[in-house]
Amino acid sequence: MRKHLSLLAGILLPAALLAQEKINMEVMQQIRTEALEHSGAAELAHQLTDIAGPRLTNSPGYMRAAKWAVQTLRQWGLNKAALEPWGVFGKGWSTEHVYAAIKKPYYQPLIAFPLAWSQGTKGLVTGNAILLDSMTITAIDRLGSNLRGKIVLLHTRDSLLKPAPAIYRYPDSVLNSLPDKYMVRRESLTRHLETAKLTAAAKKHLATKGVIALISLQGNGRDGTMEVNGHNGYAKGFELPVPELTVTKEDFLRISRLLRSSVPVNLELDIQNKWYTDDLNGYNVIGDITGTDPALKDEVVIAGGHLDSWHSGTGATDNGAGCVIMMEALRILKAIGVQPRRTIRIALWGGEEQGLYGSFNYVKKHYGNPADMQLLPAQQQVSAYFNLDNGSGKIRGIYLQQNDAAGPVFRSWLAPFADLGATGVTRSNTGSTDHLPFDAVGIPAFQFIQDPLEYETRTHHTNMDTYEHLSMDDIKQASAVMAAFLYNAAMRDEKLPRKPQPHAEQFVFDLNYPL
Amino acid sequence: MRKHLSLLAGILLPAALLAQEKINMEVMQQIRTEALEHSGAAELAHQLTDIAGPRLTNSPGYMRAAKWAVQTLRQWGLNKAALEPWGVFGKGWSTEHVYAAIKKPYYQPLIAFPLAWSQGTKGLVTGNAILLDSMTITAIDRLGSNLRGKIVLLHTRDSLLKPAPAIYRYPDSVLNSLPDKYMVRRESLTRHLETAKLTAAAKKHLATKGVIALISLQGNGRDGTMEVNGHNGYAKGFELPVPELTVTKEDFLRISRLLRSSVPVNLELDIQNKWYTDDLNGYNVIGDITGTDPALKDEVVIAGGHLDSWHSGTGATDNGAGCVIMMEALRILKAIGVQPRRTIRIALWGGEEQGLYGSFNYVKKHYGNPADMQLLPAQQQVSAYFNLDNGSGKIRGIYLQQNDAAGPVFRSWLAPFADLGATGVTRSNTGSTDHLPFDAVGIPAFQFIQDPLEYETRTHHTNMDTYEHLSMDDIKQASAVMAAFLYNAAMRDEKLPRKPQPHAEQFVFDLNYPL
Repeated sequence: MRKHLSLLAGILLPAALLAQEKINMEVMQQIRTEALEHSGAAELAHQLTDIAGPRLTNSPGYMRAAKWAVQTLRQWGLNKAALEPWGVFGKGWSTEHVYAAIKKPYYQPLIAFPLAWSQGTKGLVTGNAILLDSMTITAIDRLGSNLRGKIVLLHTRDSLLKPAPAIYRYPDSVLNSLPDKYMVRRESLTRHLETAKLTAAAKKHLATKGVIALISLQGNGRDGTMEVNGHNGYAKGFELPVPELTVTKEDFLRISRLLRSSVPVNLELDIQNKWYTDDLNGYNVIGDITGTDPALKDEVVIAGGHLDSWHSGTGATDNGAGCVIMMEALRILKAIGVQPRRTIRIALWGGEEQGLYGSFNYVKKHYGNPADMQLLPAQQQVSAYFNLDNGSGKIRGIYLQQNDAAGPVFRSWLAPFADLGATGVTRSNTGSTDHLPFDAVGIPAFQFIQDPLEYETRTHHTNMDTYEHLSMDDIKQASAVMAAFLYNAAMRDEKLPRKPQPHAEQFVFDLNYPL
Repeated sequence: MRKHLSLLAGILLPAALLAQEKINMEVMQQIRTEALEHSGAAELAHQLTDIAGPRLTNSPGYMRAAKWAVQTLRQWGLNKAALEPWGVFGKGWSTEHVYAAIKKPYYQPLIAFPLAWSQGTKGLVTGNAILLDSMTITAIDRLGSNLRGKIVLLHTRDSLLKPAPAIYRYPDSVLNSLPDKYMVRRESLTRHLETAKLTAAAKKHLATKGVIALISLQGNGRDGTMEVNGHNGYAKGFELPVPELTVTKEDFLRISRLLRSSVPVNLELDIQNKWYTDDLNGYNVIGDITGTDPALKDEVVIAGGHLDSWHSGTGATDNGAGCVIMMEALRILKAIGVQPRRTIRIALWGGEEQGLYGSFNYVKKHYGNPADMQLLPAQQQVSAYFNLDNGSGKIRGIYLQQNDAAGPVFRSWLAPFADLGATGVTRSNTGSTDHLPFDAVGIPAFQFIQDPLEYETRTHHTNMDTYEHLSMDDIKQASAVMAAFLYNAAMRDEKLPRKPQPHAEQFVFDLNYPL
């Protein structure tokens, strides 16, 4: 039924509605020229990745990046550019020394990284490796006193490498009918939280066995690329006592095979981490191009992406790219001197990776709590929220998030960028990032369709999420499309159409642990 | 003209000559069954990579692997299985501690590896990074006293990542007409040696400037994969005084960009290497299945591959795979109990990566010196030398090395394996490995066409040359084909046809530094 409605909208309505959308083609051309020929994106990306470093929420790197962003927005002439605290997050953390190696049967350094908010080791420590079948109290007790003084490898079922990933681009044909992506169902979330509790309890039990450290695979890296996530040890009461790190799949499987062949593997580790407790608040970065139409300037169009990253790379594609594109879009609009009727706001969120905290708390504070749907008056003043968080691939279109009425509007906005590959309007939902809290309180909120490139196969949450893995040509294209969307939304006579009454049951996102 | 002859051979002769090659289809079927259904290849590969570790020539890992190979060949019942010294190589070397990190502007561990036979650091050392334009005395003197106490990054012209590599297989259509591959022309070799001398002189000059270490890119890795080669510091008088290491391209370019943005980059290094001088001899591993025909048993068919590897991985594809396939081929022949007329010899060479030393000196000692073409009588007794050294890809055919007369023989030998993808007979030469010394003294010597997989794009000389990157199915197929070739060559009434008189000018291989 939904699909039928969607097809109907796609076939019958566009011609009529396109005519109603006024597009200022002169401005569109200025945007293209500024975005493609005078791009500032590479320098923004360099600043945000190489110079700020990893941007784990509440880490020094995050604060460096956030302060740089505020300063940059101010330099461009944005109003009210500032850090906005969104509430208590918890402790900051960074790693200050990472060393891991096989010592016997022969020396081999390991490519390793501690999990975020994990404990360091007691200086340089050595111990034999041991395989633990699963992170359960039963499996731990099965090994019993054999665990004392050991470095524990948590068994993985993956015994082989997945095929080498390729860089992927969508064919045009799929762009109007993509399936839902990254949506988390309430049941899976509940199951996930239950498992997480059991895992945390097992890890606390493991700590009582006198182990030196725990090594676990976090995802499906290969070739020296490894996924590195974290604990929720930023929050009080969630600290885990055992030092935990990850290594590459190649290193992990080599050690596992040696152990299975009964060859003792002696490892040495020296991991030193630093905790920051001086300011437990989380911060977003906010800045405005103030609207100029007296009747509309209190209305707002928001462009957002999360500024925080994981810590083993420099968060270039997750989500430096989104921040760069959004910042660059605002720079373009300032550079060509537009006078938007509505206010255009940029919002760079913190704490996304730990549970969309920055955006969720921003929405709760300004627009209402999705849990009880007690909405605040300002909720009515947001025309739209646009988010980017799927890597550095160019924009191929937009997810409607089931907002059918917005479809014809976006088709007309995308039309001037069809030659740059941005053509798709797909009815589906996409999830797992910062538009969800906005969507949950009934604000039209959207993510774009981006070419996947090597986002999911190589860079997402990995040590290879670095500047080199950005596609700057894609970022330039996306900056042009974003600038156009923000401009069009700010100039349109009406706010963007809203979906029928939202309801709290739709409000499911991947809050790992409620604070 | 050559191409014309080749086509002629391909079109007109096979039917006639196929008939002359006697193929024992029963034995071919036994070989297939043993290779594909009772393979020992995975365990051989595990022993040679995971358990022996890196096999740098004359390192403890090389000697572990060589001794294991001898013992294994003996267990299978091979005769005369032994280490055979081939002359003086030089010092052994292994790394015992590798630590490298960015300390400022923020902490980030580096994926790093010292070059083979390079010096270690004086314990844990720290210094600011500096970019050196080129490894020339002029460029060094331009930086002058600024170099003191610095860690030098040797500029690379590569400023971006190459596209992500894919796993490649040859289409059938190209297998009979591949171009020459890996052949080194005398002029390029001369130029290379001249450049190497200048580079070594510049590095010695750099040492006088008080630098802490040198970081250089060795190849085109990405994603955490890095190529790691070595100096020729094994040989007396070739030691280079500056500690030299390589890092991933991502790490290298990040530091370079920071320096170009005038951000000071403070690095810390702790690299400890160990030298071994107790035995400077190099060793090959030799073993025989002795021939049973009184008239032919002094004739020999040799199967070879190099046992030595570079040191940052475990030499799984370069050339663990070749050794595994050759060993497995002999295991298969023993397992099915063949009684070959000629002797079948396996030869696992040392010192290949430094200049084909093991095979070259073996040939010089037993068959004659290609430099003056003074041949020894035993040269006449070698029917053929077969080599494998292009990764773990399955055998798709064979390079004739311009030995046209061997073409029809090989076509008939390959025929029973056409369904496994081995069909190509290509007239071209292939180089850069251990069949070249045999070819140079007029012994029919061949390398096989192997599917490239990710050999040149990912594993060759890199830290990712590990067990995971082997394709065990491909190795099983190759073991079957190899066993068949060795059996057929040992059973054939005649030795394999020889090329017209070889001449020393063809004798060009990549001896980097004559010992």
